[in-house]
Amino acid sequence: MSGQPPAIRSAPKLTHAGALAMIGAAVAHAEAIGAPVNVVIVDESGVDLAMARMDGAKFLSIETARSKAQTSASHRRPTPKIPQDIAAGLAFASHGRITQMAGGLPIVFDGHCIGGIGIGSASDDDDVAIAKAALAAIGAATEF
Amino acid sequence: MSGQPPAIRSAPKLTHAGALAMIGAAVAHAEAIGAPVNVVIVDESGVDLAMARMDGAKFLSIETARSKAQTSASHRRPTPKIPQDIAAGLAFASHGRITQMAGGLPIVFDGHCIGGIGIGSASDDDDVAIAKAALAAIGAATEF
Amino acid sequence: MSGQPPAIRSAPKLTHAGALAMIGAAVAHAEAIGAPVNVVIVDESGVDLAMARMDGAKFLSIETARSKAQTSASHRRPTPKIPQDIAAGLAFASHGRITQMAGGLPIVFDGHCIGGIGIGSASDDDDVAIAKAALAAIGAATEF
Amino acid sequence: MSGQPPAIRSAPKLTHAGALAMIGAAVAHAEAIGAPVNVVIVDESGVDLAMARMDGAKFLSIETARSKAQTSASHRRPTPKIPQDIAAGLAFASHGRITQMAGGLPIVFDGHCIGGIGIGSASDDDDVAIAKAALAAIGAATEF
Repeated sequence: MSGQPPAIRSAPKLTHAGALAMIGAAVAHAEAIGAPVNVVIVDESGVDLAMARMDGAKFLSIETARSKAQTSASHRRPTPKIPQDIAAGLAFASHGRITQMAGGLPIVFDGHCIGGIGIGSASDDDDVAIAKAALAAIGAATEF
Repeated sequence: MSGQPPAIRSAPKLTHAGALAMIGAAVAHAEAIGAPVNVVIVDESGVDLAMARMDGAKFLSIETARSKAQTSASHRRPTPKIPQDIAAGLAFASHGRITQMAGGLPIVFDGHCIGGIGIGSASDDDDVAIAKAALAAIGAATEF
Repeated sequence: MSGQPPAIRSAPKLTHAGALAMIGAAVAHAEAIGAPVNVVIVDESGVDLAMARMDGAKFLSIETARSKAQTSASHRRPTPKIPQDIAAGLAFASHGRITQMAGGLPIVFDGHCIGGIGIGSASDDDDVAIAKAALAAIGAATEF
Repeated sequence: MSGQPPAIRSAPKLTHAGALAMIGAAVAHAEAIGAPVNVVIVDESGVDLAMARMDGAKFLSIETARSKAQTSASHRRPTPKIPQDIAAGLAFASHGRITQMAGGLPIVFDGHCIGGIGIGSASDDDDVAIAKAALAAIGAATEF
């Protein structure tokens, strides 16, 4: 069928080995700086791949960490880069899933976004540092 | 029983052929301008008629596109025409379904609103241009 | 880092061109046999790629069609092949998402499951025939 | 104040180190037997402590694995020991959270139940074997 666009494309995916290496690195970094957090890692469609709640982390921050991970995976950017002027509108219209809260970073290899990581429960700076430690552990991009 | 108001009225409805023609035109326009989006088309009751998520579109924008389509179908106006001073209240009270985000347009024939279209993932201008391309494809109004 | 398992793997994905070709073929087949249906196509993580509700289709069958598509994508098999003896337990424990209702088929290329299609509103046989017409349109497997 | 019952009691809790050791052991066992699964570990209140979805695991089984973990933590017994004659009623009344599906085991130390583990996506026997491997890794009870 000449002229018909292809029904299939090839794309990279994060393995469970990669996701668990990210969890391990995030927890190790969080322990080193004394900042207990929740870590959520999602795939390129926003579905959970791995999560961990550390001793002392705020349990409601599991949900905000997941929203951060999903936002970064969907929008392929750090959560604070969601446009300021429409952040509230996006949050409402997505039933809270799109967030501007710091702590969400996309997982990017060779320019391809293959998921997102969200950290929640500590300060903005600590959340971001922990997320970057996880990304560095698998050789993903850490600057955006 | 003269004097009793009629129990039935006639109203135009969008066919699935019309909804799929809109999807096709929206996707073609989005491909032409290089802006991958989600397209959601709802009927006059706000229920899904058709949707498409393009390669590279933000998956969380499926939800915002649906809110845009529902808002336009319900309020029979482009989403940015929701009153600014009560937008947050409307969003809360509708569980996020009423949105002021650009990209939602009513589907209007001969002055009758028969549904709504919502586009999400690109810039405001691109979202609106893609929605108008879909409306033009079936001869619906494109100015409001 | 010798010995560390890879963080990335490559996998095929369904394009929006492929998903829309499936929608078109499903609707054409449904029109030909006079069986209006809902069609839902999801990706390999169960997230919507495309959907259509035909004139006369049951609107609540949008939801059952989505559950069928998600079940087939997740379990990589036709929905009736969910084990009979635990079907009710699976439905409960997945909050209704895992279903044994006929009309859900996996989208399989070269042995890789890249999503699922669910058809809902007609008879079991018609739902399955429509799903197979959609799979055939893109050259995906039609026997399981 | 003699006679007044104590307001505080001491109870053992699973640490995040313990939960992650369980995840690691479960994944290692699943890899060894070639059975990709979802693993969910919850605390004594049924709230997520850690989870992992392996490459090739059924994504809808994340939800059933969570229901298994919650049922075992709540009822302090393996999921198949939920009474057969009231299983459906329990599932309805708990919104699907109480399940009789095999693959859920309580995490018990010195007779204290401190959480639950749920495994989903493989056969009943494999799910249970993987759960037991996780329990053995931290010295928890493996017979009930």
